[in-house]
Amino acid sequence: MSAIATNRKATFENLMQPWSVGIDVITGVMDKPDRTLVRRASDMKGYYRDHAALQKLIAAGDPVHYEVFEKELPEEYGHLLLCISKLYPGTVGDECFMTKGHYHTVAGTGEVYLCLRGEGYMIMKTEDGRTNEQKFAPSRMVYVPPFWAHRSVNTGDEPLISFCVYPADAGHNYGDIEKQGFPQKITRRDGRVEMR
Amino acid sequence: MSAIATNRKATFENLMQPWSVGIDVITGVMDKPDRTLVRRASDMKGYYRDHAALQKLIAAGDPVHYEVFEKELPEEYGHLLLCISKLYPGTVGDECFMTKGHYHTVAGTGEVYLCLRGEGYMIMKTEDGRTNEQKFAPSRMVYVPPFWAHRSVNTGDEPLISFCVYPADAGHNYGDIEKQGFPQKITRRDGRVEMR
Repeated sequence: MSAIATNRKATFENLMQPWSVGIDVITGVMDKPDRTLVRRASDMKGYYRDHAALQKLIAAGDPVHYEVFEKELPEEYGHLLLCISKLYPGTVGDECFMTKGHYHTVAGTGEVYLCLRGEGYMIMKTEDGRTNEQKFAPSRMVYVPPFWAHRSVNTGDEPLISFCVYPADAGHNYGDIEKQGFPQKITRRDGRVEMR
Repeated sequence: MSAIATNRKATFENLMQPWSVGIDVITGVMDKPDRTLVRRASDMKGYYRDHAALQKLIAAGDPVHYEVFEKELPEEYGHLLLCISKLYPGTVGDECFMTKGHYHTVAGTGEVYLCLRGEGYMIMKTEDGRTNEQKFAPSRMVYVPPFWAHRSVNTGDEPLISFCVYPADAGHNYGDIEKQGFPQKITRRDGRVEMR
């Protein structure tokens, strides 16, 4: 998950051997990932409106917010990075748990999310202020086209799990997100989900 | 499925709206594909050793051999093409049903195959004679690295179905395959599968 695009290409001299991995399409579990990115509540400071509620969550054990299970691959044009994204259920105040969200460093690269478990939304925005949302449900595939910043939001009671594929040279760019967030807020109160 | 790489890139001026599609991870069915590529027995002339057996199959109704269900996307760097590949079960003589197989026109691009149903192999080769095989089974993901020609082979009794993702500028190149095929042959006789 480098923030810097590499401008490298896959070469025949560095030929990779084919391989396979178990990705359970029912449970959403990747067999022996090479890397696991773990984001806890304390990694999400500034991302939710209700700072006091987040502090309370951190004080109560700082639970895992989301995990990304990855296979190690060269971050080069031609390869495809793939991962399982697992976002836990819950709220901070009334705001549903969400990922930080990111643009790609090579902004003109897209991403495929095949939802395997759970429910929620992919919320998206562009640098010039356009917005879009797509529903996540098992067996629903969301296409994030090039140039769209994207964030997953879990509106359900179980983990929201997706299988993701994107160009290996894309990189991650948190850009304006840490300061500005996304225009869309998704809340849940007494089981009722709202987007504004 | 153009044979020619486009050398185009996704641009912000041609910004695509996000979208989603149903891809049933149990049945392997894509909801309303934009295109369906259909290969019948008669499209496979020259690909199997037993020409007489293939002729017999063609005469007996020329059944569908495999289908590729696709979403329409610009064949440009930055986008990701995605499809469902559905290869029917059967044999031509004792050789298991298989796809034609292809290199990518931009040879240095890979592909991800997440198997949803059925059983079989991804057989692969490089232009300089290396070979590799990976087993297909539900919830098994095969990574085809850049530069590897790849062909699916169905060794089971039901359709072999995979969800595939690859760079949209990759293109398809049948290269030396139509004349030389792949070194690996997979046969099935009285239910017993063999690779040589």
